[in-house]
Amino acid sequence: MLPDFDRHLQTYAEILLKIGLNLRAGQRLLITAVRTDGVPIEAAPLVREVVRQAYQMGSPFVEVIWGDEAVRLARFRYAPADSFAYYSSWHSEALREHTNRGDAVLNVTADNPTLLEGIDPHRLATARRAVLEHMAPYFQNVTRNVMNWLVAAAAVTGWAEKVFPDLRGEAAVDRLWDAIFQACRVYEPEPLAAWQRHIAGLKARGAYLNARRYDALRFRGPGTDLTVGLAEGHMWQGAQNTAANGVTYTANIPTEEVFTAPHARRVEGVVRATMPLNFGGVLIADFSLEFEGGRVVALRAGQNEDALRRLVETDEGAARLGEVALVPHSSPIARSGLLFYNTLFDENAASHIALGRAYRDCIAGGEKMSDEAFAAAGGNDSLEHVDFMIGSGEMDVDGLRNGVSEPVMRGGEWAFVV
Amino acid sequence: MLPDFDRHLQTYAEILLKIGLNLRAGQRLLITAVRTDGVPIEAAPLVREVVRQAYQMGSPFVEVIWGDEAVRLARFRYAPADSFAYYSSWHSEALREHTNRGDAVLNVTADNPTLLEGIDPHRLATARRAVLEHMAPYFQNVTRNVMNWLVAAAAVTGWAEKVFPDLRGEAAVDRLWDAIFQACRVYEPEPLAAWQRHIAGLKARGAYLNARRYDALRFRGPGTDLTVGLAEGHMWQGAQNTAANGVTYTANIPTEEVFTAPHARRVEGVVRATMPLNFGGVLIADFSLEFEGGRVVALRAGQNEDALRRLVETDEGAARLGEVALVPHSSPIARSGLLFYNTLFDENAASHIALGRAYRDCIAGGEKMSDEAFAAAGGNDSLEHVDFMIGSGEMDVDGLRNGVSEPVMRGGEWAFVV
Repeated sequence: MLPDFDRHLQTYAEILLKIGLNLRAGQRLLITAVRTDGVPIEAAPLVREVVRQAYQMGSPFVEVIWGDEAVRLARFRYAPADSFAYYSSWHSEALREHTNRGDAVLNVTADNPTLLEGIDPHRLATARRAVLEHMAPYFQNVTRNVMNWLVAAAAVTGWAEKVFPDLRGEAAVDRLWDAIFQACRVYEPEPLAAWQRHIAGLKARGAYLNARRYDALRFRGPGTDLTVGLAEGHMWQGAQNTAANGVTYTANIPTEEVFTAPHARRVEGVVRATMPLNFGGVLIADFSLEFEGGRVVALRAGQNEDALRRLVETDEGAARLGEVALVPHSSPIARSGLLFYNTLFDENAASHIALGRAYRDCIAGGEKMSDEAFAAAGGNDSLEHVDFMIGSGEMDVDGLRNGVSEPVMRGGEWAFVV
Repeated sequence: MLPDFDRHLQTYAEILLKIGLNLRAGQRLLITAVRTDGVPIEAAPLVREVVRQAYQMGSPFVEVIWGDEAVRLARFRYAPADSFAYYSSWHSEALREHTNRGDAVLNVTADNPTLLEGIDPHRLATARRAVLEHMAPYFQNVTRNVMNWLVAAAAVTGWAEKVFPDLRGEAAVDRLWDAIFQACRVYEPEPLAAWQRHIAGLKARGAYLNARRYDALRFRGPGTDLTVGLAEGHMWQGAQNTAANGVTYTANIPTEEVFTAPHARRVEGVVRATMPLNFGGVLIADFSLEFEGGRVVALRAGQNEDALRRLVETDEGAARLGEVALVPHSSPIARSGLLFYNTLFDENAASHIALGRAYRDCIAGGEKMSDEAFAAAGGNDSLEHVDFMIGSGEMDVDGLRNGVSEPVMRGGEWAFVV
């Protein structure tokens, strides 16, 4: 076991509750894993610590929905071919009711990135669509910041052995916890204060970019020349939001990004991913997308191209962008040199874009806009929201406005000072 | 690890699915722990084996609701005093919807019998009532045999260390698995055939008792002289039921009992429990109840009398009997000499009675009777159904009919041959 593991786990749980969720006394908490069947049972040490601290912070009721990758895999392997549209509404209903009431949600990510390699892609796509359709009311609450929510990670064997292929079992898990603690500032002398400083820095980046009012960003790097139009009234966000329930929170731990809404109909050019993408248990790797009028018109992938095509074909919005995010190549996570095969970490090691739904607060007033008004401003909608990494040390980014171009990033690093 | 553990676990899972649930191809399965928050995560090896086999038997969708005793305990220790009536309906709704559709339920019992010792009894009673009220629609489906359901056990540390107080951790768990496998005929050369013979034997006992048409049973032993009137049209049941969904199943593994419905208003005398009772994480021990006109009029307990009093005061039916069951003192579980502190096992080691709700099929036509007709015949109703053990090697049981008495059990053994 990692030296001082229990103490570091306590600190990590404290960061999740105080910096991430900013859980309020009297607020209920639901802990789950939204896109799978629940928090992996192997994450019990973290979950138990979060539960204890949440009650001690005055939460009146903390609930956990657990899942198990072995159970998940058994379904894909052994269930009848025509059964993959089955979904029981209890998980999605629990999330809908809970978040409609303004209660907090901790979404734990710990997926084995290759759990479902080799499974019939049609089974995967059918099951994924069922989850997304049932979870749509919850994702709408997320997208509109109805409540404080958080995505955070737990180290478990299946995932850890993919990140550290030379290690097995507990040794791999220990190394992954170490990497998570490092990325989440657990080892700082004063972790909560370090987080406050970091959040202030990200907010300053966002404020600078908001003041520039760019029409578009142009990304150039190996295999990439992509111009991403920005939505009308777009707002750069970073590190903190204030939810409709009044709580100011940080939705991802770790977070190193500032991000905003692209214009769903103004994206042109070609982009090459700089990291593989863990797409629900299969790795899409070595892939490129070509856009015209905001829409994907061509794609190719060295691995699991079929899964990428099914993603883009989910609905109209899944072929368009809903997020553009800037992360310097010197981010602590990038400096670790690790490929996490987990979007929460990899997206905070590199600039990235997302296919699918846009966040409402990335357009001024968007949380209260009608769907039509949001779409008219360029905001995208979809069942999906899938980030993938395009940044690297060779990426230049320019901001375009009224025909003038100015540097935003050079060689993957910020080209401006705040 | 126990020798051949994996193979024995496979056999055990097969018994649960083929003898217990008799799961049909095309039938969905929900695995949970009804009275707590879900199947203990430590039971994962069993759950995974059941899931795999269920899919291979043609189930289109197997779901698991998991729980964790540490999370449960944290709530009782740390949550605000006024929060214990909180309940989220997702667990009870999942069970209600699932069973209304006629799907199968596996209810896994593995509770640490002293988990909640020392917790404020008011907290426990408030939380228990919330569970029972929300679960009432599910329990009605159970009581009416709407679907095939099964209660079965898994060995986990907290429970195992109570049964084997000289052992710790894996050693205790191994011993408890061994005891469970023994009690469930896993070690028989042909376990499924052994179960079929055993079921036939229990059904023959039930048929004999049904033919006797007793008005009442009289129990006599140390501290006990209790006359239990039987409901009008009472039917003895044992080992097998046929559910409304058409499936013939065995609701408990193990099972050694034949049982029927007492008359809720015709129980007289005093009864002393012969084993402690695990009542939701506290042990009620060394206790006696006195009945007049079917109702508990006095009680005392050497340990946790307060919990016993709260149980009896839950509602009108909780002070009356809903089940009377006969189990010979030579049952394999009794012969093991173990006290399991778990009703599924202890009730199959000794004759027992239950406070609370009666099973509908213990009165002829009861599954389709109105509540009023069922009550008029003597059938009891309550939020509760709590079995406790009264049998021993010193217990005599007589059947009474038209003023004539005949021996049913002598010295805890059957006094008749079938």
